Amino acid sequence: MKEKTLQDIQLGQRASFTKTVTEADVVLYAGLTGDFNRVHVDEEYARNTRFGGRIAHGLLVAGFVQPALSAITTPGGVSLHYEFDLKAPVHLGDTITAEAEVVEIRQDKPIVTLETRCTNQKGEVVISGRAVIYMVSEKDRKR
Amino acid sequence: MKEKTLQDIQLGQRASFTKTVTEADVVLYAGLTGDFNRVHVDEEYARNTRFGGRIAHGLLVAGFVQPALSAITTPGGVSLHYEFDLKAPVHLGDTITAEAEVVEIRQDKPIVTLETRCTNQKGEVVISGRAVIYMVSEKDRKR
Amino acid sequence: MKEKTLQDIQLGQRASFTKTVTEADVVLYAGLTGDFNRVHVDEEYARNTRFGGRIAHGLLVAGFVQPALSAITTPGGVSLHYEFDLKAPVHLGDTITAEAEVVEIRQDKPIVTLETRCTNQKGEVVISGRAVIYMVSEKDRKR
Amino acid sequence: MKEKTLQDIQLGQRASFTKTVTEADVVLYAGLTGDFNRVHVDEEYARNTRFGGRIAHGLLVAGFVQPALSAITTPGGVSLHYEFDLKAPVHLGDTITAEAEVVEIRQDKPIVTLETRCTNQKGEVVISGRAVIYMVSEKDRKR
Repeated sequence: MKEKTLQDIQLGQRASFTKTVTEADVVLYAGLTGDFNRVHVDEEYARNTRFGGRIAHGLLVAGFVQPALSAITTPGGVSLHYEFDLKAPVHLGDTITAEAEVVEIRQDKPIVTLETRCTNQKGEVVISGRAVIYMVSEKDRKR
Repeated sequence: MKEKTLQDIQLGQRASFTKTVTEADVVLYAGLTGDFNRVHVDEEYARNTRFGGRIAHGLLVAGFVQPALSAITTPGGVSLHYEFDLKAPVHLGDTITAEAEVVEIRQDKPIVTLETRCTNQKGEVVISGRAVIYMVSEKDRKR
Repeated sequence: MKEKTLQDIQLGQRASFTKTVTEADVVLYAGLTGDFNRVHVDEEYARNTRFGGRIAHGLLVAGFVQPALSAITTPGGVSLHYEFDLKAPVHLGDTITAEAEVVEIRQDKPIVTLETRCTNQKGEVVISGRAVIYMVSEKDRKR
Repeated sequence: MKEKTLQDIQLGQRASFTKTVTEADVVLYAGLTGDFNRVHVDEEYARNTRFGGRIAHGLLVAGFVQPALSAITTPGGVSLHYEFDLKAPVHLGDTITAEAEVVEIRQDKPIVTLETRCTNQKGEVVISGRAVIYMVSEKDRKR
């Protein structure tokens, strides 16, 4: 499979990835990252917050943009920068569609910027963000 | 356990979390997020890239800042914004120390900004970033 | 981070950890330990027992005392002995608070005893126990 | 499958379970229990302890006795008590054989005591312990 270069990316190009956020996802992600914030793992506590129950880790859901980014930029692209605005809570059982769209292609360097957005099953944007990807060029390759 | 408010946070306050990034972490995180980028899951491919082998997902490692953020701001804090600059690859077996430090406390709103940094066992900064946390105030609480 | 010694531990010192026990926890723990006892993994069977449904493995829930023990005795403490009395079943969805309290500090050897207790969301003690921890002293260290 | 009763258990009856302890086991168990003690998850730290590298959580390895206990006492047996003496560290990659042997059958109550022992690939006993199991009798059954 040939690696992609800047020439393979088009302005406005889009991709998406959809997944229901399950209790198992949150349990495993807490375990990988060590984030046992009670709002994620303690139903009794979470029920009495304004969220009304456990919510997913923001960065877990943010990670769903990666398959969308990968569909556009890999193999070959390497992430340089991510940013995310968390706009609404994601509850266990919510179905999230993560989208990425190419919004800038630099001419001086092989660098692409994509806007990202995670939307729940009601169409509410729960996370909006941006990713900056470096497209590996021939001279960067080992062989 | 009482929830923290802005009054519990001090400028310059710091916390950290350390973990070795294992193959199991990368396998599980790929499964949670659907990011099967070859550089993360295909050793044959990754060996021939400039990385010389599989590397961890940037957002997996970025997530290690969460326990450090939580130690300072929870229970009570809710994340509003994350940003991360990925500065160097993280190889399987690297040990990452994630640190967070309070760098701004707003006076008009209960909002705290922390600088975050992930460093490997050689002392190289692999990710630098920033998190903005909203401290829940009494009037936000359900009861 | 400096390792703790006996001098860092106080009689009566306490710590706790809270987590909701999920189906994912039980599935994963069964996989780690090979304990596929039907009362843990077979809902059809478990529904017709006096438990009325699957229950968590006792030793999974007992393990929740470890973060509480760690908060008091690590880095530096090494477990020598654990014991647990299982007093009531833990159902999927129960929220368990595990507590540890220092009840004895030996003078002749760097050894600490803690009482442990796991309580469900109704305040019922589901497991009570004891842990004995050896506090590493300077002469035990490799360097 | 008929449930076992006290009449199905013999004094001296034995069973065993063998498993290699992998890095993935330790990663997942840390995640299930929230125990991120550095000696389990931080290779850089662990290498400089007297263990020479990361070791498995004692209660994870102790849990390997459950399949051995189950082979003898389930379906039907319910654990009342566990105790474990941790005698030697378990390193990643060690292969543990957990054994259980019936050492006491009470006459007044349907209660069985088993001695348990976890041995590594060199034949060293790493954990010795005891489990007390209640054998459900007809009158305890829902139907």
